[in-house]
Amino acid sequence: MDLNADLGEGFGQWRLTEDDALLDVVTSANVACGFHAGDPLTMRRVCASAAARGVAVGAQVSYRDLAGFGRRYIAYERAELTADVLYQLAALDGIARAAGTRVAYVKPHGALYHAAAAEPAQANAVLDAVRDYDPTLALLTLPGSRLAKAAAEAGTRVVAEAFLDRAYTREGGLVPRTQEGAVIHDARVVTARAVRLAREGVVEAADGTVVEVHAESMCVHGDTPAAVDLARQVREALVDAGVEVAPFAA
Amino acid sequence: MDLNADLGEGFGQWRLTEDDALLDVVTSANVACGFHAGDPLTMRRVCASAAARGVAVGAQVSYRDLAGFGRRYIAYERAELTADVLYQLAALDGIARAAGTRVAYVKPHGALYHAAAAEPAQANAVLDAVRDYDPTLALLTLPGSRLAKAAAEAGTRVVAEAFLDRAYTREGGLVPRTQEGAVIHDARVVTARAVRLAREGVVEAADGTVVEVHAESMCVHGDTPAAVDLARQVREALVDAGVEVAPFAA
Amino acid sequence: MDLNADLGEGFGQWRLTEDDALLDVVTSANVACGFHAGDPLTMRRVCASAAARGVAVGAQVSYRDLAGFGRRYIAYERAELTADVLYQLAALDGIARAAGTRVAYVKPHGALYHAAAAEPAQANAVLDAVRDYDPTLALLTLPGSRLAKAAAEAGTRVVAEAFLDRAYTREGGLVPRTQEGAVIHDARVVTARAVRLAREGVVEAADGTVVEVHAESMCVHGDTPAAVDLARQVREALVDAGVEVAPFAA
Amino acid sequence: MDLNADLGEGFGQWRLTEDDALLDVVTSANVACGFHAGDPLTMRRVCASAAARGVAVGAQVSYRDLAGFGRRYIAYERAELTADVLYQLAALDGIARAAGTRVAYVKPHGALYHAAAAEPAQANAVLDAVRDYDPTLALLTLPGSRLAKAAAEAGTRVVAEAFLDRAYTREGGLVPRTQEGAVIHDARVVTARAVRLAREGVVEAADGTVVEVHAESMCVHGDTPAAVDLARQVREALVDAGVEVAPFAA
Repeated sequence: MDLNADLGEGFGQWRLTEDDALLDVVTSANVACGFHAGDPLTMRRVCASAAARGVAVGAQVSYRDLAGFGRRYIAYERAELTADVLYQLAALDGIARAAGTRVAYVKPHGALYHAAAAEPAQANAVLDAVRDYDPTLALLTLPGSRLAKAAAEAGTRVVAEAFLDRAYTREGGLVPRTQEGAVIHDARVVTARAVRLAREGVVEAADGTVVEVHAESMCVHGDTPAAVDLARQVREALVDAGVEVAPFAA
Repeated sequence: MDLNADLGEGFGQWRLTEDDALLDVVTSANVACGFHAGDPLTMRRVCASAAARGVAVGAQVSYRDLAGFGRRYIAYERAELTADVLYQLAALDGIARAAGTRVAYVKPHGALYHAAAAEPAQANAVLDAVRDYDPTLALLTLPGSRLAKAAAEAGTRVVAEAFLDRAYTREGGLVPRTQEGAVIHDARVVTARAVRLAREGVVEAADGTVVEVHAESMCVHGDTPAAVDLARQVREALVDAGVEVAPFAA
Repeated sequence: MDLNADLGEGFGQWRLTEDDALLDVVTSANVACGFHAGDPLTMRRVCASAAARGVAVGAQVSYRDLAGFGRRYIAYERAELTADVLYQLAALDGIARAAGTRVAYVKPHGALYHAAAAEPAQANAVLDAVRDYDPTLALLTLPGSRLAKAAAEAGTRVVAEAFLDRAYTREGGLVPRTQEGAVIHDARVVTARAVRLAREGVVEAADGTVVEVHAESMCVHGDTPAAVDLARQVREALVDAGVEVAPFAA
Repeated sequence: MDLNADLGEGFGQWRLTEDDALLDVVTSANVACGFHAGDPLTMRRVCASAAARGVAVGAQVSYRDLAGFGRRYIAYERAELTADVLYQLAALDGIARAAGTRVAYVKPHGALYHAAAAEPAQANAVLDAVRDYDPTLALLTLPGSRLAKAAAEAGTRVVAEAFLDRAYTREGGLVPRTQEGAVIHDARVVTARAVRLAREGVVEAADGTVVEVHAESMCVHGDTPAAVDLARQVREALVDAGVEVAPFAA
């Protein structure tokens, strides 16, 4: 089982994620590429730290929107979005290679993650960029999303991820954040879900039914010390349960 | 002899350079990489056009300064500048490869061109980025500059360029723009200088002395239709004089 | 009758609109405020030229999107959009006052123009900013739009504008740009429509019916010399027809 | 005695300064205006909080450099810098007025603070912007600086500030940060200096001599909880010593 988290989400003087602490926990680092966060020097430092720890590097590509942190939907034209994603992906890969590693996968960020999951044009724009750059790269995304389907059809490797702190519907989707109980805060519940998901491939949904969730990676957070601590507990629980914690991208 | 020009210096809705017309004339395209100009879609279009015409692609790296078009000196710290240059270079190279070509050389733009010619810290910052990315890349720069010297010492290929429309001092330097007669506007003078430089390796300086100028490339401009027309005349004059016009980077 | 046009839509080294030529023609200048175009020095120059000619200054507020020129829809939260509009409006007004004039009205640009015409949240965000800054400012907008209705209800002056080069439906709306014949290119048709609209308050729709269009201002373009020439012909035709051409904001 | 601090130095998702805690301590808030930090919504929130507490609002104007946090010298042309400062000042003042207060003074930030203290062109650029906007505004700056002199000659009110945590030379200047002992970390020393400065108008210099320092304001920091705590101790020590702590700008 892989553990992924967003990293390098500062910009210049600003810091958001606890990068070094988090790199001791995760096996895959979704590194911000400069469009919603991530200045080049931070990108380089994170890549060097990831390389030193054997953590896989992924390109956390996003809309060009520093002010909105990539969380606002933007109605891009397809060719423009492909070019923006390609630019970010190539920039991070060059920096990663200079740091002795390379980009192994792509994970869209924020509003682009959601738009590429739902809209064919944005899904294809992201997929085109990935394939134009390097068809052997993997895409880390929500299972069943538009992007996952388009990638699978094109022969691009899709890695499904699960969200440990989010409630699931009985259909295996996420309960929208606007609903009560959508986010799970209890650390013991989160770690127990992680172990069950890794060993049995199931999650207990919000209504108590047990649903199958196929995931090769689990998404954890690192924007607060408490989040990093929870991620560490998840990793320890997995290891204690005999689950191998390793990057999906070798 | 190589002819180089700055290209792709628009951003979004804005255009500055006559890219397609210029790509019919030059043999090396200094493509803006997004920090002083050059959005990713424009970069991709220029790279595709360059690839189709056999024009070599160079990374025209610059300070992060869209508002100042990279023409204002910025007091970067060295590691920060290296990371910014590496980011731009990698982004353009990825886009160039997706368009069927690749970055063959690097030419700093504007205030960075001048700072890297004069300041050891900025010269080394640019050189580090180039070497960290790909030690086989060439640097297109002013002969005798700090950057040229540092690159030569490090074993990086340096390609010297000459400026056809700029008056030279008897020492082989450029007459500062602030002095009268610094810029040569007469098309016949410019084309005659091009031919003499290519065949004899000399330029007539402002004071009438004939000075040796070793250049593998001549810089032409493309920000107005008249500039493109002059570039075309230079190319035709060179061809008529039996000079082979070809990229320095094969 | 007022003639309005977008001005100052360059940024740094880039120019788009023929500002000085256009300021000899229009009576109201929609000045870009820095978020989709318009650096502060350009804003200041345009305001000074407008003041010298007695042209009214309006704030052409927009999404924060230089790369997309404000033409891409962005899903702003309401309070964030209000703050962004207020910031732009205040910045331009301060610059206008330093140039001896002031902002007299607000016209949203591009995708914000369309979103504020259709979405209550974005319409109210724009309206809040205008009213928070100065409740006596006018809003220049499409008649019948969400923004026009919300402004009228709030007691804010609404100035309706007409588009001379756009075909109208029999209901008095604009034929979408995606349909054939949506844009009128014939200068004689455009000038004749201007005169008829100013004198009779009607436009001949695409299907030949004559529809009432109440407009206090006509929108003309200035992004090419040909567009400026057409705007000049419109003004001359209006003057020849005895129509007083003057700013709506005295 | 006035206490000033930099506030609102986040951008979008990023936070840097402990704004609300700091607004309970200081009497003047140097609010970032969007060019090195400070998105419009943050500006608005800080202005509203300042207004509610009777804290004076100042415009913390800076170079256009989010990536460098305004700490890198940029070689602006004078008219361009004036326009950039005017834009920021007007934007903040509009937002402040919408929040029930107004900009009462201007304090340049970071590299611009230092450049305006040393270079006539940048000093005059800042001064021009302030005077063009509102000649009654005050300038908060280093005593003896170029900007202070130019402002005094022009009849603009200059408010001198002192730095409690910085060692002084016997000439009354600051010991450069590169020298050992330049920054004072001991809270008791800092608070004692504050009281002595407020009551006697003197500071003990690094070499033990007692130098006169005329200051109407003391600069405190708020980028960490510890810094806010120190600022609070300074305020309490001043109040305990019978010093009136109030904004210089009533």
